[in-house]
Amino acid sequence: MSDVDDARAVNASLYEAFETADVDRMQRVWDDVAPDAVVCVHPGWPMLRGLGPVLRSWSAVMANTEYIQFFLTDVRVHVRGDVAVVTCTENVLTEVTDAAHAGATVVATNVLVRRPDGWRMQVHHGSPVLGRLADEADGG
Amino acid sequence: MSDVDDARAVNASLYEAFETADVDRMQRVWDDVAPDAVVCVHPGWPMLRGLGPVLRSWSAVMANTEYIQFFLTDVRVHVRGDVAVVTCTENVLTEVTDAAHAGATVVATNVLVRRPDGWRMQVHHGSPVLGRLADEADGG
Repeated sequence: MSDVDDARAVNASLYEAFETADVDRMQRVWDDVAPDAVVCVHPGWPMLRGLGPVLRSWSAVMANTEYIQFFLTDVRVHVRGDVAVVTCTENVLTEVTDAAHAGATVVATNVLVRRPDGWRMQVHHGSPVLGRLADEADGG
Repeated sequence: MSDVDDARAVNASLYEAFETADVDRMQRVWDDVAPDAVVCVHPGWPMLRGLGPVLRSWSAVMANTEYIQFFLTDVRVHVRGDVAVVTCTENVLTEVTDAAHAGATVVATNVLVRRPDGWRMQVHHGSPVLGRLADEADGG
């Protein structure tokens, strides 16, 4: 596989780990060589820094999520040396009640770094697309 | 200056250009060597791609902003080869009416690439810190 394909696969692993609430797989997605450089922004959250706090946040988020499914669109990968920048739109489907689901749109910037055993995530930044502002963007 | 200082200065230029509504300076912040790789997410907005659309969005945003001031905190720079990842918190002060100002918190991930004439911004991703979720994050 090419660098771009590899980075795309690791990027997809983040979402698959979340969908299956797989804590071990989530841990393998992230870079543990430079744990202090790890950054994660969950949509609407402040910035979390450091591998430990980031993994704990994922465990908490996954424990509090009954059902979630991601449909990634507009995935672009740019590799420059040992860094891959993946940008994408997350079309998110979650369960609100037993009978109702809700959709949401999140945009994400994910920075991956090359390690001897493959690409690992150093930064995940997801942010909510808010309706009113999205309309303004369309007109701007 | 070191790579880190240089990248930090270019990162600051983005906010200074916005504060002064300086379209030319804003343009000089961004990478024009790989214009298709340019990405910008204004807080709450969908993802904008391409140097042209991104610069037009900044012109529109700056034209519609009476007053804005940024106090950057928790600025971290990680350089790896020809890529610098800058993460920070934007403490934003804007004018709501002639007499009233409002504060907001935005977190940002900015990706800079090395060019012959210095660092240029390839990705700016800003996202709003929402109150309710921020409280949850504190407790999680």
